[in-house]
Amino acid sequence: MEPVNDRSPNSEDSPRGTEFDLIRWIRSRVGASANVTVGIGDDCAGLRLPDGQTLLVTTDMLIAGIHYRPEDASPRQVGHKAIARAVSDIAAMAGQPIAVVAAMAAPRGSPSEFHREVFTGMQSAADALGVRIVGGDISVGDLPLTLTITVIGTCAPGAVVCRSGAQPGDRVVVTGSLGGSLLGRHLDFLPRVKEALWLREAASLHSMIDVSDGLAADAGHLAEESGVAIELWEDAIPVSEDAKRAAQSSGRSPLDHALHDGEDYELLFALNAADAAQLIQRSDAPVALTCIGEVASGSGLYLRKRGEERRPLEPRGWVHEF
Amino acid sequence: MEPVNDRSPNSEDSPRGTEFDLIRWIRSRVGASANVTVGIGDDCAGLRLPDGQTLLVTTDMLIAGIHYRPEDASPRQVGHKAIARAVSDIAAMAGQPIAVVAAMAAPRGSPSEFHREVFTGMQSAADALGVRIVGGDISVGDLPLTLTITVIGTCAPGAVVCRSGAQPGDRVVVTGSLGGSLLGRHLDFLPRVKEALWLREAASLHSMIDVSDGLAADAGHLAEESGVAIELWEDAIPVSEDAKRAAQSSGRSPLDHALHDGEDYELLFALNAADAAQLIQRSDAPVALTCIGEVASGSGLYLRKRGEERRPLEPRGWVHEF
Repeated sequence: MEPVNDRSPNSEDSPRGTEFDLIRWIRSRVGASANVTVGIGDDCAGLRLPDGQTLLVTTDMLIAGIHYRPEDASPRQVGHKAIARAVSDIAAMAGQPIAVVAAMAAPRGSPSEFHREVFTGMQSAADALGVRIVGGDISVGDLPLTLTITVIGTCAPGAVVCRSGAQPGDRVVVTGSLGGSLLGRHLDFLPRVKEALWLREAASLHSMIDVSDGLAADAGHLAEESGVAIELWEDAIPVSEDAKRAAQSSGRSPLDHALHDGEDYELLFALNAADAAQLIQRSDAPVALTCIGEVASGSGLYLRKRGEERRPLEPRGWVHEF
Repeated sequence: MEPVNDRSPNSEDSPRGTEFDLIRWIRSRVGASANVTVGIGDDCAGLRLPDGQTLLVTTDMLIAGIHYRPEDASPRQVGHKAIARAVSDIAAMAGQPIAVVAAMAAPRGSPSEFHREVFTGMQSAADALGVRIVGGDISVGDLPLTLTITVIGTCAPGAVVCRSGAQPGDRVVVTGSLGGSLLGRHLDFLPRVKEALWLREAASLHSMIDVSDGLAADAGHLAEESGVAIELWEDAIPVSEDAKRAAQSSGRSPLDHALHDGEDYELLFALNAADAAQLIQRSDAPVALTCIGEVASGSGLYLRKRGEERRPLEPRGWVHEF
């Protein structure tokens, strides 16, 4: 599912608008409903089940030439990625993924071995994540390979973690390290499902998102949806080895890669400062946890270098423009 | 969701195979699971909810140039059709549709008015069918408009009607009339949601499908999944006025249109002969009900004209070939 950001940096530049303009427009036209506990604008939709649990639903397209370069990815990697990035939206809400339906539009003339390889990649990712492929749809036409993965998950009553909910004084924590995903990690990552469930047990999370558009863009989404400002601490951001490698040829800094590349599929979350301090000292954490900033009242996104004033940070990341 | 038919007439002719070859292959690789009450090969997948209800999930792609001719359909009609045909798969299992997530890939450069019209069509169909659009995904690229609609529904314990379940001696009944949908009905139909719920209350349905690929193809799916033969009665098939109009210029008979056009989105179901006799006499039925054939032991699909021997009927309909 796509995030919503009312202040997409591109929306005023583009005469036709961006995905965010359209989502904002749609969101204004879809009313609330008692059984819809999480509506448009979060990583998943949430529906109340009769037993009080929340049913999570998310849908995600993966299109050759848009979301990956076909020449760089094997069909098996494409299938893996399609499942992994969709399931990541369930992790982002601390849910347990259960089942997947997969729709595929395949280019006319593509060989059956290719389709089977895509499916094999989907199934091995599903197996690794404990979800089942329970149905789907197949079409053939003159278009690039287009996969739409819809994931169903569940979450215990009251345990859903939304993008909204971050409070002034909270700390911002991220799993793993960031940047340079395009060097390969974006094709073989596993979303942080188990880690999200562990985190939910270990602490009271106020707000969470997965880092798909990029740290800056996704921190911007958290700030926006929570109605707060977020200040990221430049020196604390865990820059990945891939970000450093990418910087050697890109002319950009490793930090810039960590802030804006996206496709990290790490978890970014906010929680009470005391809880955060306790959490990042846990020796049994299943993944590296780094405190990278804090929540303040107001709005907007900022970056601060130690000993300096904070400065505005553009929530720049991947945006679909029409 | 696409049907499964092991004897697709096209599968041997096409060196690259059809959608059905791939679905059969996938189906052989996905194991059973206690919580998956209906797996790959039916109109929806079924998952057991904690309270015993079944959660139904179906996903359906609608692609410009493949599933409709863009020059013949307004964007609003396209949005309507995308929702209506996906929800029809919930009706086919006698479920109650609840929520929709919608993924859209839009052609680069398409104007925002176009996207809004598509959404308006989706929302008015959703409103008419009592379902909510709760989330989605938006991409932009060099491809035709591609919509993937996933519908979530529920069904009371034990009340799901599958494609399997037809028994020798059963009668085959269809709602409404068939054929000629391309003259316009395929763009503005409402799926038989209320009618399916009424039917489920009114009689014990053994087996059901919606007529999307065409009467012959879909009766073939019912026979295949139930492990029985189906004999359709040529003189009883309700041929629509559109089928007669279409026949005036197509060089085909109205019956041929009724058998093979598809996109009727009527309900085709099997039930005990005595129940069928009682059902079709009900004066309070919300839709015309016609008994059009019977189920026999064995396998295959047949057509019989009154006073003649039955003859094999090719389950020919729309098939995606790679």
